[in-house]
Amino acid sequence: MKIVLAQQNYHIGNFEENLKKIIDAIHRAKEEKADLIVFSELSICGYPPRDFLEFEDFIGKCYEGIDIVKEHTQNIGVIVGSPMRNPEIEGKDLFNAAWLLYQKEVKGVAHKTCLPTYDVFDEYRYFEPGYQWNTIDFKGKKIALTICEDIWNLGDNPLYRICPMDELIKQHPDLMINISASPFDYDHDEDRKEVIRRNVLKYKLPMIYCNAIGSQTEVVFDGGSLVFDANGNIIKELKYFEEDFAMVDFVNDWSKMPNNNSLNYQPSATSFDKEMRVAKINDPDKIIDYLTAENNICQIHDALILGVRDYFSKMGFSKAILGSSGGIDSAVTLALACEALGKENVRAVLMPSPYSTSHSVSDAEQLSKNLGNDYDIIPIKNIYDSFLSALKPVFNDLPFSIAEENIQSRTRGNLLMAIANKFGYILLNTSNKSELATGYGTLYGDMAGGLSVLGDVYKMQVYALAKYINRDGEVIPKNIISKEPSAELRPDQKDSDSLPAYNILDKVLYQYIEKRQGPKEIIAMGIEEALVKRILKLVNTNEYKRNQFCPIIRVSCKAFSVGRRVPIVGKYLS
Amino acid sequence: MKIVLAQQNYHIGNFEENLKKIIDAIHRAKEEKADLIVFSELSICGYPPRDFLEFEDFIGKCYEGIDIVKEHTQNIGVIVGSPMRNPEIEGKDLFNAAWLLYQKEVKGVAHKTCLPTYDVFDEYRYFEPGYQWNTIDFKGKKIALTICEDIWNLGDNPLYRICPMDELIKQHPDLMINISASPFDYDHDEDRKEVIRRNVLKYKLPMIYCNAIGSQTEVVFDGGSLVFDANGNIIKELKYFEEDFAMVDFVNDWSKMPNNNSLNYQPSATSFDKEMRVAKINDPDKIIDYLTAENNICQIHDALILGVRDYFSKMGFSKAILGSSGGIDSAVTLALACEALGKENVRAVLMPSPYSTSHSVSDAEQLSKNLGNDYDIIPIKNIYDSFLSALKPVFNDLPFSIAEENIQSRTRGNLLMAIANKFGYILLNTSNKSELATGYGTLYGDMAGGLSVLGDVYKMQVYALAKYINRDGEVIPKNIISKEPSAELRPDQKDSDSLPAYNILDKVLYQYIEKRQGPKEIIAMGIEEALVKRILKLVNTNEYKRNQFCPIIRVSCKAFSVGRRVPIVGKYLS
Repeated sequence: MKIVLAQQNYHIGNFEENLKKIIDAIHRAKEEKADLIVFSELSICGYPPRDFLEFEDFIGKCYEGIDIVKEHTQNIGVIVGSPMRNPEIEGKDLFNAAWLLYQKEVKGVAHKTCLPTYDVFDEYRYFEPGYQWNTIDFKGKKIALTICEDIWNLGDNPLYRICPMDELIKQHPDLMINISASPFDYDHDEDRKEVIRRNVLKYKLPMIYCNAIGSQTEVVFDGGSLVFDANGNIIKELKYFEEDFAMVDFVNDWSKMPNNNSLNYQPSATSFDKEMRVAKINDPDKIIDYLTAENNICQIHDALILGVRDYFSKMGFSKAILGSSGGIDSAVTLALACEALGKENVRAVLMPSPYSTSHSVSDAEQLSKNLGNDYDIIPIKNIYDSFLSALKPVFNDLPFSIAEENIQSRTRGNLLMAIANKFGYILLNTSNKSELATGYGTLYGDMAGGLSVLGDVYKMQVYALAKYINRDGEVIPKNIISKEPSAELRPDQKDSDSLPAYNILDKVLYQYIEKRQGPKEIIAMGIEEALVKRILKLVNTNEYKRNQFCPIIRVSCKAFSVGRRVPIVGKYLS
Repeated sequence: MKIVLAQQNYHIGNFEENLKKIIDAIHRAKEEKADLIVFSELSICGYPPRDFLEFEDFIGKCYEGIDIVKEHTQNIGVIVGSPMRNPEIEGKDLFNAAWLLYQKEVKGVAHKTCLPTYDVFDEYRYFEPGYQWNTIDFKGKKIALTICEDIWNLGDNPLYRICPMDELIKQHPDLMINISASPFDYDHDEDRKEVIRRNVLKYKLPMIYCNAIGSQTEVVFDGGSLVFDANGNIIKELKYFEEDFAMVDFVNDWSKMPNNNSLNYQPSATSFDKEMRVAKINDPDKIIDYLTAENNICQIHDALILGVRDYFSKMGFSKAILGSSGGIDSAVTLALACEALGKENVRAVLMPSPYSTSHSVSDAEQLSKNLGNDYDIIPIKNIYDSFLSALKPVFNDLPFSIAEENIQSRTRGNLLMAIANKFGYILLNTSNKSELATGYGTLYGDMAGGLSVLGDVYKMQVYALAKYINRDGEVIPKNIISKEPSAELRPDQKDSDSLPAYNILDKVLYQYIEKRQGPKEIIAMGIEEALVKRILKLVNTNEYKRNQFCPIIRVSCKAFSVGRRVPIVGKYLS
């Protein structure tokens, strides 16, 4: 039986485009004499559709999609994902379903049982968990069909009380097929292979695993679909961060397949307990090395490029603008934007203030010359002075404070948005995760923007990204990488006036945010108690700022924004 | 058996303050010779604690809270809400639990079974649903103890597959006690009574129902705790939007209680199907009347006052600032802020631009004179000109556009934030729900602010609120109510240049947002197809703006922000 994996990038709610992609792939698979083609989770509508699922009109369009796809299933089986109405009165109205369509009919449907409802996932918000499990007969084979999280309920401490493969195995299937929308994070790369390998070895069955690719606002799906034989060997691995299409022959290849060491997967020590869903690195002294390891940085780079590119294409925009300060964050953002969108679609604006150092402008100019993107220089002194003059009757002679600092930052935000509005740019935000965590940024100023490129990248990782971007020669000028970080909003300001050294800060933040450690555990790492309490208080009291922040491309297992939901008026460690 | 209902306002994560309130009430109940005191859902930590629940440190503090309360239970039973660790390996690590503490011991615990995971609720994100049900013996009575949503699974089309009272009734309890954190919306007021009445009549048992009060960022809990006898009569109704404390005598009062018509609840026709969780008004011609009905507006008023007051007190602030344009939205916001915080704590800033009409300033001045709050006038012309002059090399001679409009709005945002930063004010946002829905506002400009007062109030309701505020005499000048709405960002601009009439717009928005109707159903109401499609497209393409908006005090059954989660890059009806 020849089976095609179609790893595609869907646009949520764009039924016309998604269906075109699906049907094109079916026709190609037919030409290649495939028996069955497999698409990813909720492929008809795109994943995650979120509250669109509450609209009967939207569900109607999903059903129309199934009907349209059905028409193309003469002599080829098609497995697609699409919501299914719950025929029973009790429980939620929908299932998250995988449909096997064949000869213009529905041959079988599987309901997702394990509904991820944590981090960026909200599936129980919409779906009833499956509670009946049946294999599906197709061309003389019994298929155990599951959806994404259904195969992740392993380990000694599982998140769900029911494991659907334990039910399906009772019916003696020949093959497991899992359709997924499993998002990327740099901490997650080997987990997916390991979870499939463990299923394969546990149930002694081969598995076809088809994942989605593409970025959906903040969540990046990285593809890497897989085929495993029943011995735990990888038969096929599809591309990462790209669409792909691959065919495997179930009968002819796999039974004879010798152990192919180049494809043979090396098992990892991953725990598949609940804790798997928290970051894995445990030795505090290794955190910074881990965060900045080249393998992780390279993946983060690729995910950010896809994240930027898909945000623009799915929003219907092509051009980006950003403020270029001569600092490392805007430099890395600018370089990534040029790579993602093309330098001709990126415009930098340099907006020196009276407190900017001379090298800020020259470094930023050199960067844009290296990258070849357009840039403008707009000094903000006159605007800043006009604000001070208008506020004179209110401020009187009160000393310079954070208010004056923020006026400068918000003036820049206003200038960038004005140019964006005038010419149809999207403003890219340049804040990093360390700043967002501690609230070291100005709302409506440097926190403005339509998309945050580095909001899930700690400062130490921004430096590592800069080095990675310079791997084949200087793109980001050395001086930008080596200078001490500063917001330059008052004379001689340095980040280190307000924040601890970033190698300490990032370590504490990682323990608190990614690993959900409390003050006791973090102090036990050997960090001074007062400093730990100060950092955690900064994180918790600045939730109100992050709440108004733009979407962040998620690259870690715990990004701010949709994956981390903390009460704003809460008073905890604050 | 004398039972106290303690209806209290908790601060999420503020264990010290919450425990003090709880212990004070226990001591008062002891003085009044109560046998049992009942607090609301998750009273120890405050509801909703959201992702704080993922911190073992936070759960540890909840357990410490239980231990502290336990010490005060000599001769009095105490029912409090607090998370409980799941002793089984499978499933989520926590239950949402109700604890009965007595004589310094845990007498019994109930686990919440029906976990609301829709709209503003995310309970399955944290909790395993209860799957064992036992009554708790206390002083010779058997108590059926449940938590909030547990009693809401009624009707012909229930949301959950298990109804915990159906299990508990098998053990022949004498009394139902339900501890809740059931939020306010103006569409919901009679539902709570009706759901209790139906439980009481179905199970032929009296019910003690203790609800929380207080606003938690965006969600307002309105109290109104209730005691029903087994015949469906209300024995006691606690205050709305206020803390309260009341004692009932279970044995002496209720068996003898005659039908007291003044307290006798009139059953409503509410359906308790899933559809209950969607707005109820069905006749499209009655939507505007319903939205602006005095009973609803009065409740919305009270909820907004509590929402503003609690946001400030829980954030540790006392003073508000806002832009006062002479329009209806800022006028209503200012009047509400003065009522909530005291006129001496509210500062208005009038910021006329070259396009402001003369009455804008005079109307806004008159409003502040009526209210007695401080105000400043800061014309923005010079700042606006300095922006245009700085942008001249980039804009060249391109015609006036939305870019210039937004510069004015963002200049105002910058001025307001500067004064807020200088003097420690919180900026109140003045946008209404109709504007937010259609994206008729400027990011970082009039969309700035720490809290949105009117973001869940349609424009037609803003007018009704203005009239309600003027019920005992003119507070908001008549001219502000009667003039045609305008953003005044270009010559002779009117809202009606860009938006349909608000009585049409609000009707369409209500059908789409509150009732999740699709274009077909809305067109069938008799609204022109092109207009419907234009409005729905505006709503869907402006999700990126609302995503960066501040928290909105929720008064309807479907508010933007935390209760409505729509993909930003989605392409649906857009």
